[in-house]
Amino acid sequence: MHVFKKEEYQERIAKTKKTMEEWGIELLFVSQPANMNYLTGYDGWSFYVHQCLLVSLDKEEPVWIGRGMDANGARITSMLSDENIYQYADDYVHSLIKHPMHYMADIIKKHGWEKKVIGVEMDQFYFTHRAYVELEKSLPNATFKDANTLVNWVRVIKSENEIEFMKIAGQIASNVMKTAQKHIAPGVRECDVAAEVAKAQYKGVGEYSGDYPAIVPLMMAGEATKTPHLTWSEKKYENDEAVLLELCGVYRHYHVPIARTLYLGEQPPKLMVDTGKTVLEGLDAALDMIKPGVLVEDIEATWRRTIEKTGLVKESRIGYSIGVNYPPDWGEQTISVRPGDKTVVQKNMALHLIPGIWLDDVGFEVDASFYVTDNGVKQFFDDSREILVKK
Amino acid sequence: MHVFKKEEYQERIAKTKKTMEEWGIELLFVSQPANMNYLTGYDGWSFYVHQCLLVSLDKEEPVWIGRGMDANGARITSMLSDENIYQYADDYVHSLIKHPMHYMADIIKKHGWEKKVIGVEMDQFYFTHRAYVELEKSLPNATFKDANTLVNWVRVIKSENEIEFMKIAGQIASNVMKTAQKHIAPGVRECDVAAEVAKAQYKGVGEYSGDYPAIVPLMMAGEATKTPHLTWSEKKYENDEAVLLELCGVYRHYHVPIARTLYLGEQPPKLMVDTGKTVLEGLDAALDMIKPGVLVEDIEATWRRTIEKTGLVKESRIGYSIGVNYPPDWGEQTISVRPGDKTVVQKNMALHLIPGIWLDDVGFEVDASFYVTDNGVKQFFDDSREILVKK
Repeated sequence: MHVFKKEEYQERIAKTKKTMEEWGIELLFVSQPANMNYLTGYDGWSFYVHQCLLVSLDKEEPVWIGRGMDANGARITSMLSDENIYQYADDYVHSLIKHPMHYMADIIKKHGWEKKVIGVEMDQFYFTHRAYVELEKSLPNATFKDANTLVNWVRVIKSENEIEFMKIAGQIASNVMKTAQKHIAPGVRECDVAAEVAKAQYKGVGEYSGDYPAIVPLMMAGEATKTPHLTWSEKKYENDEAVLLELCGVYRHYHVPIARTLYLGEQPPKLMVDTGKTVLEGLDAALDMIKPGVLVEDIEATWRRTIEKTGLVKESRIGYSIGVNYPPDWGEQTISVRPGDKTVVQKNMALHLIPGIWLDDVGFEVDASFYVTDNGVKQFFDDSREILVKK
Repeated sequence: MHVFKKEEYQERIAKTKKTMEEWGIELLFVSQPANMNYLTGYDGWSFYVHQCLLVSLDKEEPVWIGRGMDANGARITSMLSDENIYQYADDYVHSLIKHPMHYMADIIKKHGWEKKVIGVEMDQFYFTHRAYVELEKSLPNATFKDANTLVNWVRVIKSENEIEFMKIAGQIASNVMKTAQKHIAPGVRECDVAAEVAKAQYKGVGEYSGDYPAIVPLMMAGEATKTPHLTWSEKKYENDEAVLLELCGVYRHYHVPIARTLYLGEQPPKLMVDTGKTVLEGLDAALDMIKPGVLVEDIEATWRRTIEKTGLVKESRIGYSIGVNYPPDWGEQTISVRPGDKTVVQKNMALHLIPGIWLDDVGFEVDASFYVTDNGVKQFFDDSREILVKK
């Protein structure tokens, strides 16, 4: 039931092993759900308990280790052979005495890997401090190295199949945004719009099923437009208020985000209109110069140069890499479009540029989600970026 | 905009400080989103970057520290005074050089807390190993102690207001399950049902807005009933297959899970009917004996004794504590209904009993979500627990 052909996973594993060699890592302990999915197809909402994938330079196929009740899920959704699926007993879950890392260390020993250089994802949310402590204690002869974002960097260049998945996600994203724009109106409750948005996200478009987003609909109205990352309540939309929408479309965990600004009333305030114009000019300038070979920091510099004449200042990064992901983040934690990011842009990278403005006196959001082609970019959707004014 | 009165948060903080004293902790570094929400009302999807709440025995109000763009979100949603909201610059995000913990350590020093006994949530998914390493390096004179689940244990006894919220979540849960049962039928795509379920979850019931669930709809059909934790695809439901549904209702992040089993066809297989009967008998026996004073492990023992005559064996825990939560888990990581859990049941605890069966030859799920009263339990919904047979 894994979604890509076995050969594609094998290619990803080969690339991962090559990077492991470059980083000086013999055994990779993968805990991020997106990385586990990327390498094997494994797909279950089981990441609220400890689980991992072991990739060893001396073994062809990775080893999956998870909770007993999820082993059948690994058998159904991953491309792994049965012999490479290991399950720990349920009394390891949220126990003060036993820890799943003890079992995982046993499996590492069983394979003779206990003296290896083991890479762990040290700043991943699914690898806790205690996980590290218990693993280190159980494997006193191993050497631990930080392998944070190792697989994430392998994920940065998409395969043609992944680009196809993201194009579908882009269609879903476009439909999701249209759904939100259609339903938002003065007097309508935020939660009723959120409900329609979620429905569109899960349903997908045409023959393609949508999937759950790594970030739920972010819908800031009125006072909340000072900040990103808020959700919804029973509050009704009002006349003469702005609404910032940061949504996405997802196909088989591949994310394409979409952000737009709406204004309910006759005419948005001048500051918002002017801010919108500046942001769009900066975004267009950035999109125009992206092609293989440019540095990521130069994308941001182009944006910055374009808007500086207006006095608008944007202190946060204006974008990041996107692809397959699970909650809590659809960003890949690799490329950040900001000063100092010396990554060289390459064909089939996928990026989300979102130069959002969240100030006390004005909020504005617009974005572009695209992949890099031979000589420029190709956007996953091309919906109007203007402020949608609804009376 | 915080949802409870300030006094309720103050009471929760007082209880937390009392527990800190008992555990020998002077400064508590809280990173779990549910704990941050519980203590201050803070509510934003910002937990994909490092953030924290500092609770100190020598300071009345906690201190929130997060990413710059989320500080206005803290001002809007939490009950904290402006002076207790600190924000770090954006170049700390996903950087290889700077780490948010450096900034957090600076704020700890600014308050003169750098030599304190600092409790950190060592096995929480939002506190990574690197977070610990950077914090420890930046605060060489501090003593670190594991404060994992300290606030979670404070959360175990619900206030009357929280029980009211969960009753609303229970109404939403019941409606969510009815929605799923209504839409599932042979020939219907799983994703179309998931879409209706999400809509019902987000919309809520009557005047009450729903919220996003900490676990998305789990909907296992056909072969997938061997395992929990799978989601949906374009696959159409078929005749003569079972569907396991593990859903929930959420009101302001308070969760009430609901699980039921459906069969599409004339008559479910005898093994499923028999398993269902056994599970229900065991569940009823467990529910009957719960009241203040009994031990949690005795709930499981009652279940086990009731079903053992049939030969059915359930190796995983049969339940856990529920309340306010954020992805990836609606369980509180405190009480686990299994052998060895000596927690004494108290009034206003809220539990989810879900003795799910996921075997190669049969899958069955049913549950009860309830709180403990003076002399028994009160369920958050009382929908039929029988297998729903749909032709």
